[in-house]
Amino acid sequence: MPAYHPPTEEMLALLEEVLQAGPALAALPPLSPDGAEGDPLPLLRDVLEEAGRFAAGVLAPLNRSGDEEGCRLENGVVRVPQGFTEAYAAFVAGGWGGLSQAPEWGGQGLPRAAQILLDEMMASANFSFGLFPGLTRGAVEAIERHASEDLKARYLPKLVSGEWCGAMALTEPQAGTDLGLLRTRAEPQPDGSLRVTGGKIFITAGDHEMAENIVHLVLARLPDAPPGVRGISLVLVPKYLPDAEGRPGARNAMSVGALERKMGIHASPTCVMNYDGATGWLVGAPHRGLAAMFTMMNAERLFVGIQGLGIAEAAYQGAVAYARERRQGRAAGEKGEAAQPILVHPDVKRMLLTIRAFTGAGRALALWVALRMEEAARHPDPAARAEAEGHVALLTPVIKAAFTDLGFEAAVLGQQVLGGHGYVREWGMEQLVRDARIAQIYEGTNGVQAMDLAGRKLSVEDGALPARFFALVRAEIEAAGGTLGAEAYTAPLAAALKRLEAATARLTRRAAANPAETGAAASDYLRLFALVALGWMWARMALAALRAGGAATPRHRAWLDVARFFMARLLPQSVALDLALAEGAAPLLALPEEAY
Amino acid sequence: MPAYHPPTEEMLALLEEVLQAGPALAALPPLSPDGAEGDPLPLLRDVLEEAGRFAAGVLAPLNRSGDEEGCRLENGVVRVPQGFTEAYAAFVAGGWGGLSQAPEWGGQGLPRAAQILLDEMMASANFSFGLFPGLTRGAVEAIERHASEDLKARYLPKLVSGEWCGAMALTEPQAGTDLGLLRTRAEPQPDGSLRVTGGKIFITAGDHEMAENIVHLVLARLPDAPPGVRGISLVLVPKYLPDAEGRPGARNAMSVGALERKMGIHASPTCVMNYDGATGWLVGAPHRGLAAMFTMMNAERLFVGIQGLGIAEAAYQGAVAYARERRQGRAAGEKGEAAQPILVHPDVKRMLLTIRAFTGAGRALALWVALRMEEAARHPDPAARAEAEGHVALLTPVIKAAFTDLGFEAAVLGQQVLGGHGYVREWGMEQLVRDARIAQIYEGTNGVQAMDLAGRKLSVEDGALPARFFALVRAEIEAAGGTLGAEAYTAPLAAALKRLEAATARLTRRAAANPAETGAAASDYLRLFALVALGWMWARMALAALRAGGAATPRHRAWLDVARFFMARLLPQSVALDLALAEGAAPLLALPEEAY
Repeated sequence: MPAYHPPTEEMLALLEEVLQAGPALAALPPLSPDGAEGDPLPLLRDVLEEAGRFAAGVLAPLNRSGDEEGCRLENGVVRVPQGFTEAYAAFVAGGWGGLSQAPEWGGQGLPRAAQILLDEMMASANFSFGLFPGLTRGAVEAIERHASEDLKARYLPKLVSGEWCGAMALTEPQAGTDLGLLRTRAEPQPDGSLRVTGGKIFITAGDHEMAENIVHLVLARLPDAPPGVRGISLVLVPKYLPDAEGRPGARNAMSVGALERKMGIHASPTCVMNYDGATGWLVGAPHRGLAAMFTMMNAERLFVGIQGLGIAEAAYQGAVAYARERRQGRAAGEKGEAAQPILVHPDVKRMLLTIRAFTGAGRALALWVALRMEEAARHPDPAARAEAEGHVALLTPVIKAAFTDLGFEAAVLGQQVLGGHGYVREWGMEQLVRDARIAQIYEGTNGVQAMDLAGRKLSVEDGALPARFFALVRAEIEAAGGTLGAEAYTAPLAAALKRLEAATARLTRRAAANPAETGAAASDYLRLFALVALGWMWARMALAALRAGGAATPRHRAWLDVARFFMARLLPQSVALDLALAEGAAPLLALPEEAY
Repeated sequence: MPAYHPPTEEMLALLEEVLQAGPALAALPPLSPDGAEGDPLPLLRDVLEEAGRFAAGVLAPLNRSGDEEGCRLENGVVRVPQGFTEAYAAFVAGGWGGLSQAPEWGGQGLPRAAQILLDEMMASANFSFGLFPGLTRGAVEAIERHASEDLKARYLPKLVSGEWCGAMALTEPQAGTDLGLLRTRAEPQPDGSLRVTGGKIFITAGDHEMAENIVHLVLARLPDAPPGVRGISLVLVPKYLPDAEGRPGARNAMSVGALERKMGIHASPTCVMNYDGATGWLVGAPHRGLAAMFTMMNAERLFVGIQGLGIAEAAYQGAVAYARERRQGRAAGEKGEAAQPILVHPDVKRMLLTIRAFTGAGRALALWVALRMEEAARHPDPAARAEAEGHVALLTPVIKAAFTDLGFEAAVLGQQVLGGHGYVREWGMEQLVRDARIAQIYEGTNGVQAMDLAGRKLSVEDGALPARFFALVRAEIEAAGGTLGAEAYTAPLAAALKRLEAATARLTRRAAANPAETGAAASDYLRLFALVALGWMWARMALAALRAGGAATPRHRAWLDVARFFMARLLPQSVALDLALAEGAAPLLALPEEAY
């Protein structure tokens, strides 16, 4: 496994020069009355440097061993790989659990940008480990937004600190994407609690001994529930029932039936859970569990997209390190017998640049969304909050699906750079591929994300979400006109944006006539959208460099060079996607189902 | 693991209706004086049906267990998974080893098309198993073409029957793609043999006990060898030295140092080999080992491409079976509560059609090449032989690289159709992904294949190879003008061919000025080439259907429908590739190496 070097300076440069995060955050009211005011970047620097030391020093060394050892179920108890329990204790002790959580519940109240960058580092260093706090945060979001004050007081401080972990129990054998089919029952008891009975599968971190309690958020049906998705409720089911002092007390009636044997994320226990009359409490209104679940899911979907980003960064670093060391052949046209590092070969550069074209702009885009989340939560103007929320809603499926697809592609490219060594376990690159693969599947497959974008998100308020986003990008392109050299970056972006706008209008029109058009377009449409969004960030990065004097520093030169590569060699894919989308659903629906 | 159903009828229909294989083969002189004459298709049908029974009945049931159990090195002896030894014995007993080998050496002298289809079936049913005979066949090709009569007589009958297996020992720790760096020594002995000393890595099937002997073809340097690739010789080194009767005698001085632990192909032992003064014999002329090796490599590269095809077929079958069974949601616009099979969802169709758009035309293209190989070997006219050989040389890197890339992409898509179940080992789909991945790496990485195409193959005789190929495709497009409905398929193909021709001329021109242009274009150029070659086969299949009355049969209708999907939704990628290639090397070379 190659050493992990947290890209802290790049992260800070993006926040400062590309996203103007300092002024943007300083303009918002503080998260709590005693919150710090002014430029948060110096604090962020300290936090990120510390996070980088934790990820590189504590998590990365456990990544290969965690993959080899995996999790085990022993007499009903889940055992995590060696070192994970200690690493998780260090995570809790370091206060990483509540980084961007509300101070009210013990969080540190830092901007979500800090959380996203910590998530990226954890995904780069140890993808499996990052899932434990990742799921916990989803539970926190749902409880904070939807649970009673009593439940909040009882559970949030422990979950925010990370002393207790969270789990999301949605899927059942017959109910995955289609949650309307779920059967787990929740029966009201005289004391106001619920009795939960049923079986769930694919429950990430459903059980382990790293935390003193695990709080499951379980989707279930109340006795009077209408059928389908309108009859689903969200129930909080802790592994240990808190006693009067709030400490873990009696064991709840739930158990792990089995651990799944998986392609990757071996250090993350994927549990088959049985709830045998387990005690729980309703979160949110009866039958409104889906709304509460989407609070979790949206947080998780961004997190999963960031996992794709993190794995791409790890693949890039591993591949570059190898490409500098490994000597085979010589650059075209060079004389002499001595072999040169394979980094000289253009096809190796192509693979590395393709990864970096994603990680560079992907990180910027994720941070842009994190800033909008901050505005959505804290901006004093309701209209500004709503607009920010619209951008987050629009980009959430794009980040989940495109970042995990590109993250997987990046892992495959990074592995390819190592040739045969990339296929051998000890080098660690094939683990990145196996781990990355799950992110395209869980928290809603990428096909489901594409449907969310092309269906739901395009139709909100008659297309207001994409219209506002396109207007924003277009305004930036126009505003860049005064910067010398900007045209090389903004002209290809403007052309791609035009294609995306045309494709959006066409899809909206066609879908009104034939609903199958949405599904037939969804995946290609999402990729087209992602290309434009990434191209927008590359244009921003190039502009920031140009305004800072062009290629005056290595970082600014790199932004310009990779931006050019993206525009020249990757963004043309937007033309092909637009052409394919223009053909519509008919060529995809022609083959009769019996002929598959 | 889903059941494997050999697509025998589709294979035969391609041979008969799309490739006119019967008349094409009947026109060639028989392979041996007592060879059968006339239409070989009835015989091929019998052979393929038997091969399908072997693949589905004997090999497929060992695929999951072979992956789980893997190979082990015990006291220097390689143990293959349970059942593999018996399956290999059945393979030998069935005469599958010599299917398309010369009757002179005990082969059955069937057309190479039969071999390719057997290879596809084996790759679908049990990718790892197929490697044992696959490597053996490479050894047969090299010995048959380059070895002395004495070596041929001693080794070929046993290798052709499969009683002995072959292995190719090329790579060393410091010498992978750059074979000029290899150090293994071969010292001439007074008896005319060579004494081979050195270490090799990544030796597929370098040792096992399934065959009574294993014949290594080892690249090594003679004492007077010039440096670099002009000083490499090919040496035959058997595990057991044949005695006077040709039976395996004394153990040679070679051993397995270790087995690699890999991402996939667990049932194929990848050996670290040590040759400690092992006895061997020169194959071909001194210092001309690279030429002899390329004989092996070219055979192997086609074989590896077919592995990509086979794994895609397996992924398709597994995904379709699941998509018919699994019920989630309903088709867009459908009423009712009952969930429908996910095959109704357009995005699922998209994934399945994308796989099939490759397997359908890929199989046809591989068979087209197999027929050209037959002509190259047997056509009475030397000019026809040379032209056929040129087509084979041009398409070999395309098939190796594009088919393995598309095969991997197909495995990933197939896995995606299963959602979370695709990530769980017991379902078998994730194994397809892990197994498929190696094919993009071994026998020359796909980047090396792209360089072979964009560099070497484009420059042979001033571009004669692509010119002849493009003329052939163009002539077929023009000849199709008289068929009603052909335009829908030939027009997009003609446009893509024009792009490919322009890209070829541009690349040739630019590479003359700057050799780095070749490497910077290679991978995108190869993908563009493959799209045109596959599009050509889809046009052929559509034309065959139109001429047979359109959608008169389910098969013909499917050919038309999938051809349309390919033209509408996938072939537009050729536009993007052409645009990216037009930008040339500069955007890819700009970033300084220290900035990676």
